[in-house]
Order: sequence, then structure tokens, then C-alpha cells
Amino acid sequence: MKKSLGPRTLAFPTPVWVVGTYDANRKPNVMTAAWGSICCSKPPCIGVSLRKATYSYGNIVAQGAFTISVPSETHVKEADYFGIVSGREVNKFDQAHLTPVASTLVDAPYVAEFPLVLECKLIHTIEIGLHTLFIGEILDVKADEAVLGEKGFPDIEKVRPIIFGPEIRSYHGIGRYLGQAFAIGKDL
Amino acid sequence: MKKSLGPRTLAFPTPVWVVGTYDANRKPNVMTAAWGSICCSKPPCIGVSLRKATYSYGNIVAQGAFTISVPSETHVKEADYFGIVSGREVNKFDQAHLTPVASTLVDAPYVAEFPLVLECKLIHTIEIGLHTLFIGEILDVKADEAVLGEKGFPDIEKVRPIIFGPEIRSYHGIGRYLGQAFAIGKDL
Repeated sequence: MKKSLGPRTLAFPTPVWVVGTYDANRKPNVMTAAWGSICCSKPPCIGVSLRKATYSYGNIVAQGAFTISVPSETHVKEADYFGIVSGREVNKFDQAHLTPVASTLVDAPYVAEFPLVLECKLIHTIEIGLHTLFIGEILDVKADEAVLGEKGFPDIEKVRPIIFGPEIRSYHGIGRYLGQAFAIGKDL
Repeated sequence: MKKSLGPRTLAFPTPVWVVGTYDANRKPNVMTAAWGSICCSKPPCIGVSLRKATYSYGNIVAQGAFTISVPSETHVKEADYFGIVSGREVNKFDQAHLTPVASTLVDAPYVAEFPLVLECKLIHTIEIGLHTLFIGEILDVKADEAVLGEKGFPDIEKVRPIIFGPEIRSYHGIGRYLGQAFAIGKDL
């Protein structure tokens, strides 16, 4: 028997991603978002939902572009900080001692120190309610050589992405390998 | 220096969620999706992207409803199986020896044996490309009593959700606790 918890934004896992944008003065900004996911394979797209009140919201609307930088768990404090303060008041890169890198593909910066980044061109804007969903076409994925594994793809155990638990508000690391997708279910 | 990997659906982490639907004959169906996320806080909404070719696609369009069941890592084989076969050919619940429960809130079934479920009413359909993004308003979240922790919310270390790595196609468990959100970044 399951217990009803009411209508809530409660699902596990959610990502901890850092959205990079430029403001009108070309000041780089970053904010942390957990409401995001890949949402199409062809063209490759990623969606991220932001509140209109955020500084990043206006930046994405104005520039038509954003990046997603995936922090490693070594930067969990910086990732949390990026979700607490507003780019209206501070330069978050400076405060966190992290380095903005200008994308050459879209008009947005990414975080040099984070191991995996996606450069995205805004293609859809969906007003849902408190949050607006921005869908970006992924023009390129870039990764640090140090996190690359077999077949040249990033190794998730080297990237060590952060997992967020909504409502319980906790961050977790990536855990043990459970098996290979589109494979282990065959011998059910 | 980062290495360019090209335009790809490559971001960590992605969830492993099971989408529950009914077909026209009320046969319950489930399919696994990794392209999904919470996408709005008010109203609480969750989005999941499916290919038009899937059996579940037509079911969601016809019923205007779906559920999300969050499998625990103990059911990783079943979750993988749900993404391999089609509900057109088989009854996946029967094959996996799992139990469909009819939602009383929306016209869709969820998986009794999975610890956390969301019941969703379709409110937006966005054609992106190969995938269509279905946005559902979360009408209720239900959880097994056994996974509830502090404050009555599900404990992520008891739910033990599965994390999927796109491209590398591997499943992982949840890892160690890293800290509290909206808190650990304050002493940066």
C-alpha cells in the first residue's frame, strides 16, 4: 500500500546542472538547475526550466543561447552557491573562483573547471507556470580528456556528476555500476 | 582543454523512469524513459519524451494521462526489459511478473512493486523532432511506507533510484551523500 504525498515535484533522480548565459553587458552568469533533461535525440536537444524571476531567464531570452556545464562532485559547494545567489548582484564566476569560457558556437559561456559541457541554441520556449521550459539544440558536447573512457566517451565514474533529491534537498554522488542498458533485461 | 565530441545526447545524470499507460483495450503498458525531468514547480509538472513509434506514444495521446514509476535498483533488469520490448507484442507486466495498479486520479496504471510513483494528467505536447515531449501535471505522488524517511518524504537512499549514462549505456546506483542543498554553498 502506497501513501499519498500530494501533488509535488518529487521524483528521483534529478540532475545538478549549471546553466551558463551572458547578460546584456556580456557579463557571464551561471545558475544551477535541477529541472532539466535531454528531451530529443534528433536533433539532439536538452531542456531546462527556469523561473521568470531569475537573471538567467532574461539572458536566455535575449541571447537565444545557453550552455549546460556538468559539475563534478568536487565542485558541489560551487554548484550549490550558483543556485543561492543572483547574477544581478554578483559575478558568480569571480566569487567561486571559476573560469568562464566563451563558446565559439553559441553566445554563452561555460565553466572551464567542470568536466562536461553542452553548447545549446534555443529552439523552443514553453511557458508552463512558475517555470518556463527552454529547449536548446545541442550543437556540441565537450569533455575534459581526463574524464574520457572507453570508445572516447566520458566515463560517468570519472565525471562524477551530482544527483539532487527534490523536497529532501540533498546532494548525492554517483553509485556503483549496475549493468549495461539494452542488455541486462534480455535475460529476464 | 576540452575535446569536442560533436552534437550528442550526452549529459549526466539521466533518470530511469517507467511510463505507465493504457491502450485502447485497457491493456496496461510500461516503457522505460531516460529523457525526462521535473519541469515546473507550480503547477508541479514532469516531462517525458517518447518517440512517435512507441506504443506508449499513442496511449498517452489517446488517454491524456500517464504515470511515472521510479524503479529501485533491485528492479534494474525489469526496467531495462521495459525499454527493449514493445507493448504491441507483449504484456510487459505479465512478462516481468509485476503488478499494474489503476490510478484513481488519471487513466493510467503504475507499477505496484516500484517504491515511488507519480500520477500525471497530460497538459502540453511539444513536437521537437524524433521525440515528442509530453508534459504532465503531477496530481499526486505516492510512495511505499518502507522508503519514507525524515519529515515523511521518501529517502533517496531507501528508494535507490537508477541513474542512466547516455552513449555509454550504463546503469548506476545512487552514491554517497554529499551535502544539503541551499546550504553547503553558503560558506563558499
